[in-house]
Amino acid sequence: MQTLTVELNDRSYPITIGAGLLRQPALLQAAVPASDVLLVSNTTVAPLYAKSVTSALEGRNVVEVILPDGERHKSLATAGRVFDVLVANRLGRDALVLALGGGVVGDLAGFVAACYQRGVDFVQLPTTLLAQVDSSVGGKTAVNHLSGKNLIGAFHQPRAVLADTDALATLPERELQAGLAEVIKYALICDPAFLLWLEHNMDALRRRDASALERAILRSCQIKAQIVARDEREHGERALLNLGHTFAHAIEAATGYSEWLHGEAVGVGLLMAASLSQRMGRLEPADVDRVASLLQRAGLRSAAPRIGAARAAEYMSLDKKVRAGRVRLVLLAKLGEAYLSDDYPDAELQATLRAHLEP
Amino acid sequence: MQTLTVELNDRSYPITIGAGLLRQPALLQAAVPASDVLLVSNTTVAPLYAKSVTSALEGRNVVEVILPDGERHKSLATAGRVFDVLVANRLGRDALVLALGGGVVGDLAGFVAACYQRGVDFVQLPTTLLAQVDSSVGGKTAVNHLSGKNLIGAFHQPRAVLADTDALATLPERELQAGLAEVIKYALICDPAFLLWLEHNMDALRRRDASALERAILRSCQIKAQIVARDEREHGERALLNLGHTFAHAIEAATGYSEWLHGEAVGVGLLMAASLSQRMGRLEPADVDRVASLLQRAGLRSAAPRIGAARAAEYMSLDKKVRAGRVRLVLLAKLGEAYLSDDYPDAELQATLRAHLEP
Repeated sequence: MQTLTVELNDRSYPITIGAGLLRQPALLQAAVPASDVLLVSNTTVAPLYAKSVTSALEGRNVVEVILPDGERHKSLATAGRVFDVLVANRLGRDALVLALGGGVVGDLAGFVAACYQRGVDFVQLPTTLLAQVDSSVGGKTAVNHLSGKNLIGAFHQPRAVLADTDALATLPERELQAGLAEVIKYALICDPAFLLWLEHNMDALRRRDASALERAILRSCQIKAQIVARDEREHGERALLNLGHTFAHAIEAATGYSEWLHGEAVGVGLLMAASLSQRMGRLEPADVDRVASLLQRAGLRSAAPRIGAARAAEYMSLDKKVRAGRVRLVLLAKLGEAYLSDDYPDAELQATLRAHLEP
Repeated sequence: MQTLTVELNDRSYPITIGAGLLRQPALLQAAVPASDVLLVSNTTVAPLYAKSVTSALEGRNVVEVILPDGERHKSLATAGRVFDVLVANRLGRDALVLALGGGVVGDLAGFVAACYQRGVDFVQLPTTLLAQVDSSVGGKTAVNHLSGKNLIGAFHQPRAVLADTDALATLPERELQAGLAEVIKYALICDPAFLLWLEHNMDALRRRDASALERAILRSCQIKAQIVARDEREHGERALLNLGHTFAHAIEAATGYSEWLHGEAVGVGLLMAASLSQRMGRLEPADVDRVASLLQRAGLRSAAPRIGAARAAEYMSLDKKVRAGRVRLVLLAKLGEAYLSDDYPDAELQATLRAHLEP
């Protein structure tokens, strides 16, 4: 079991990573000081872990709301349903929202916690690799708009994150691969040594070797926690965490948030960011090959054919990172060093879109 | 023209109060630095002032969204419509939301600004007395839930407030009276001298004497700004601003947010808070008479018959100020000194509810 802290002054909180955390009542009890709890989960995860969580919280007033599984339910309408449950059960400002599931559950439950009575406590129990390394950490909460991902949201930090690596044993293969895309992202942004480690340990990670997973999650959370501590509200550096994401969001939006898992789209997005960086003379072709090879070994795709460059550009223009009409992208100066840029030739961007998003 | 500042470090902002502000393009241009603007107003206010605002912002990209008038439209569904307009017009994170109207428009537009892309700038142009003295200042934004007022919201400070007292000339009499309830509230909370001033100037205020109105608005905003600066997130002192509001919210909810204006309900709530304070031995009967008389001179009612004590108690238990199942109330130690209490005999609360809410 490993613990690290996201340093945010009076809103600092611990991330605990390890095997079997959800089966340790004392840990859950300590993380959830409230007597009124709304447990938000989905139809896939709840049957596996909800009982263990509610038994650990025996004696508290625990209300459950079980959402349908899938990104398309991460909507304002679903948030409305959760508000209804909070109100119908007369949960007050001292209630705590407990998110048990992957990124969709965590983002939506966090958004509800941010807005219910202008903010109640919440705790993340991420059960997917993607949620454990990324979405449960850092306080970004949101729901999607039909036209774009995470367009409606809030910054609202959890008061604790418990990442039980045992939950990854039941994770579908695609979900594991999707999470690995975010892990690779951290290495590409700022840690060449971690990139090397991933290249040496990708097979172990795919086999779900417990110690390799714990190490990958810990390092990912460390990187994210450091960046978030320095730039909580994304005035600068935090935007680097969006490496690959502008491309990914366009893929997800163009396919109605149903075909692609977020992390799978991020995998393609990482490769697109590397390709564009090479077109701009920042990376060598061999660097791009290294990224492509690692993504492939993670089981991830290298293209999203049939999206079309024009449609992707359309969706990209809706991205939150648009300022003064221009999409700001995260690019790579080298492997392990990302930078922000709105100074790239449109022709190179278009060529990158065509190369990865057309048949 | 008077200006004061809400001191919140890097989120400090000016409140400008005076006659004809909406007809001064330079003021509007300075308050709205963005080139993309969403102007949110309603069907009553837009015909009167929207044109003057949009002409002042000529050259900017101003998108208008005109909502139906009334508290029942302050809903998550209406917020959803405004998000749709933002997205449909491709407004980005650098857009600014401009709220032109009363409390409903300001609260809803502020909530949308708080959540769109996790927060964009917004500016308040309050056109009712209630919005000018209360809801446009302090960063509380929200929409109502069918079961309770302002249950879904966020703290999000505006970057400027321009309160044009000329707008009060077209205000319906009931709206003026409703605003006066909030003005009286400030005096009761912490300013006996202001209470005396109100007693001397109530007739002038009812006549809409420009200088009396400007002075009442300025003093109200000063009191609110000071309290908000000391306790932005309502961890303590700010809750005093809810004097009368727990009772008022119950009246509004029990009547479906349609019969009573918020400020009218606050008027009854202030008297109920004074009555309960007297039952608890904190106020003299003469103090309560003084409050009742001032409210009456402001044109406000002293009772909301037909609500019923039981139903009001039900709605009060849904109030945001409920902690550990007990409603925390704001009471009066004397006229001009409010305090928070969850230590009051239930029988006295029930008697107060019956006295003011039953036939």
